[in-house]
Amino acid sequence: MLHNRQWLLKSRPKGALRLDNFEFCEQDIPEPDLKQGQILVRNLMFTCAATMRTWINAPGHSNRSIDLGTPIRGTAGGSQVVKSNHPRFPVGTRVMILSLWEDYSVLEPDTSPMPVLAQPPEVKIIEAMRNLNSCTAYFGLLRVGQPQAGETVVVSAAGSSVGSMVVQIAKIAGCRVIGIAGGHDKCDLVVKEFGADAAIDYKHENVSARLKELCPKGVDVFFDNVGGDILNAVIDNIAVKGRVAVCGQVAAYDSDAPAPGLRDMMKVIYRSVTIRGFAMNEFMQDADTARADIKRWTEEGRLKHREDIRIGFENLPHAFMGLFKGENMGTLIVKSGEPDEGNPSFQ
Amino acid sequence: MLHNRQWLLKSRPKGALRLDNFEFCEQDIPEPDLKQGQILVRNLMFTCAATMRTWINAPGHSNRSIDLGTPIRGTAGGSQVVKSNHPRFPVGTRVMILSLWEDYSVLEPDTSPMPVLAQPPEVKIIEAMRNLNSCTAYFGLLRVGQPQAGETVVVSAAGSSVGSMVVQIAKIAGCRVIGIAGGHDKCDLVVKEFGADAAIDYKHENVSARLKELCPKGVDVFFDNVGGDILNAVIDNIAVKGRVAVCGQVAAYDSDAPAPGLRDMMKVIYRSVTIRGFAMNEFMQDADTARADIKRWTEEGRLKHREDIRIGFENLPHAFMGLFKGENMGTLIVKSGEPDEGNPSFQ
Repeated sequence: MLHNRQWLLKSRPKGALRLDNFEFCEQDIPEPDLKQGQILVRNLMFTCAATMRTWINAPGHSNRSIDLGTPIRGTAGGSQVVKSNHPRFPVGTRVMILSLWEDYSVLEPDTSPMPVLAQPPEVKIIEAMRNLNSCTAYFGLLRVGQPQAGETVVVSAAGSSVGSMVVQIAKIAGCRVIGIAGGHDKCDLVVKEFGADAAIDYKHENVSARLKELCPKGVDVFFDNVGGDILNAVIDNIAVKGRVAVCGQVAAYDSDAPAPGLRDMMKVIYRSVTIRGFAMNEFMQDADTARADIKRWTEEGRLKHREDIRIGFENLPHAFMGLFKGENMGTLIVKSGEPDEGNPSFQ
Repeated sequence: MLHNRQWLLKSRPKGALRLDNFEFCEQDIPEPDLKQGQILVRNLMFTCAATMRTWINAPGHSNRSIDLGTPIRGTAGGSQVVKSNHPRFPVGTRVMILSLWEDYSVLEPDTSPMPVLAQPPEVKIIEAMRNLNSCTAYFGLLRVGQPQAGETVVVSAAGSSVGSMVVQIAKIAGCRVIGIAGGHDKCDLVVKEFGADAAIDYKHENVSARLKELCPKGVDVFFDNVGGDILNAVIDNIAVKGRVAVCGQVAAYDSDAPAPGLRDMMKVIYRSVTIRGFAMNEFMQDADTARADIKRWTEEGRLKHREDIRIGFENLPHAFMGLFKGENMGTLIVKSGEPDEGNPSFQ
C-alpha cells in the first residue's frame, strides 16, 4: 500500500483564494499496476507560481482550468520514479513535470499533455525546475522586449522568480534597469543582490512619479508581470517605440474579475508602443540556446538564483496563497519533507 | 482688405462636441505684409478626420491640443498661394497643409511645424489630400499588421477614409477581409464597392458572435480605428499570434474620458497577441514607395477612393461633428465654396 496525500480543488473562490477552497485528502492506496509506457512517481518538490492561480478559475476564465475534485496542478515539480513500465524512465530517474499536488502520480510520459522530462544525473533537479522561469525571463525579455544596450528596462515583480532573472539578463544585455517590487527588503534585494540600477517600492511610493524621475527619457522596455495600476504607470512614462512584454497580470489573479488593460489607449498610438503577450512555449525550439546561456552566466556569477524554500507537503496551499501577499522572494519551492529527499542529488 | 472668416475653438466640450464649442468670426483684415519666407494662402478645401477631435481636448489629453481662441487645426487641407515672399511658392501654387479653419493663413513653409507641401500641376489636390489617409492605411496594415496571404484581416470603421483603403489593400495582399461598419448601407458599400468578403453591422449585430461565425480560425490581423467594445470583441476572437494595428479609438473621441483598453489582458498572454499603436509619420521615409503603390493600384482599378464632399466653409463644424454619428462614407472633405475653386486643377 502507498500512503498518498493530496490537495484537491474543493471549490472555486469568489474573489481571493481561501484555505477552504482546498481539500486535504489522505489515504492508503494499493500500489498501482502499470500499463506499458506508464511510470509511478513520488512527487517531492513543488514550485508555486502565480500563474497557477488562473488555473483555479472556471473554464472560460483560464486557459487550462483545474477540474473540481482533482489535485491542484502546479508549474515545475521534481519527482522520482519509484515503479516503471517505461524503458527510458527506470526506477530512480528524477523527472521534472508539471506537478500535481499529491505524493504519488501515475504518468504516461509519451502521451501526457504535460511534459515529463527525465533529468540526467549531473543536473540538480532544482536547477531544472527553476530553468522554466529563467527561460521565461530570457525569451520574454530578449525576444519580445528586444532591448538594446543603453536602453532603459523596467521590470515589475522584480524580486520574483521570473522578475529577478529579467533584472539580471537586462543588465547583461547592457541596459539600465529599474525594478518595481513591494517593500523595502525586496527593493534592497533587487538592487544589491540582482544588480538593478534602482528600485521602486510600489507599496510606499508613487510609481508613476518615481518613473518620471528615474526615466526622464522614458521607458524603452517594460517586462510586465503584474498589470493593473503598475502597467498604467509605466505606460504614462513609456518612450516612443517602447515595448511591453506581457508575461503575467498578477495584480488581477487573486480575484474572479478579469485583468483590465490600459486606461488610455491613445498613449499607445501617440508613442507607437508595442504590447506583446507571450508564453514560453512559443520559443521551445530555442530552449537549448537559452539554457546554455543561463548556465554560462550562472557559472560566471552574473546570474544569481534565489529560492524561497518551504518544507512540508501540508503547507502547500498556505505557501501558494502567500504569493499574492508578496510574502516570497525568488522562486517559491515547497519540498514535501519526506525522507526520500535524502537522495543527495535531490537538491 | 481681405474678407476673412474663421472657426475658432471657443470652449472645450464636456463629453460630446457641440456647435457652441465653435465660434464663427468674420472680419475684414488688411492684406498682410509678408516677411522673407512667408506666403499668404487662401484655404479652399478641408479634410475632416476623427483624430482632430482629440486635438480639441486640453493639453495632457491630446498630443497636439488646439489653443482656445485660435482656429481649428485640421488634417489635410488644400490651399492656394495668393501672395508670396518665398521663391519656391510663387502665387498660384497649390499647397497641401494641415489646414486651419480660416479663409486666409500666413505660413512659413521652411520653419512651420506643420508641413506645407507644394503640389506639382499634374497632381489633383484632392488626391494629395486623400493620400495622407491612404498612406496611413498602407503602413498601418502592411508594416504594423504584417498580413500574410491567406490570413484573415478585420477592419473597423471599414467604410471610412482609412478603413476603406485597409479593406482594399488587404485584398490586394491576398487576405480574407471582414469589415465592421455601422448600418446596412455602409456594410453594403464595404462589400460591394471596396470588396470585403463580409461585413458586420455593429449597430444591429453582435460583433463577437458574428466574428466567431465568420472567423472560426480566429482573426490574424485587426486594423483598429475604433477601440472600445469592438476592440474587445475582436480580442475575444483573435488567433494565436494575432496582431492589432491601433490607428484610432474613435469610439472614445467624442468625450472627455480616455479610450479604455482591453477588458482582459490574459487573452493577450494566452494567445501571444501583439498590439501596436502607430502614426503615419513613423514611416515617412518610405512615403514615396507607398504613394507609387497607391497610384498604381488606383490606376489599375484595384483601389477605389470615395469622397464625401460638402460645400460651404460655414458648414465645417456640422460636417465634422457628423463624423462621430457615422454620417459620412469615405473621406470627408469640405470645400469652402468660393469662386476661387473655379481653378480647374482644384478638383
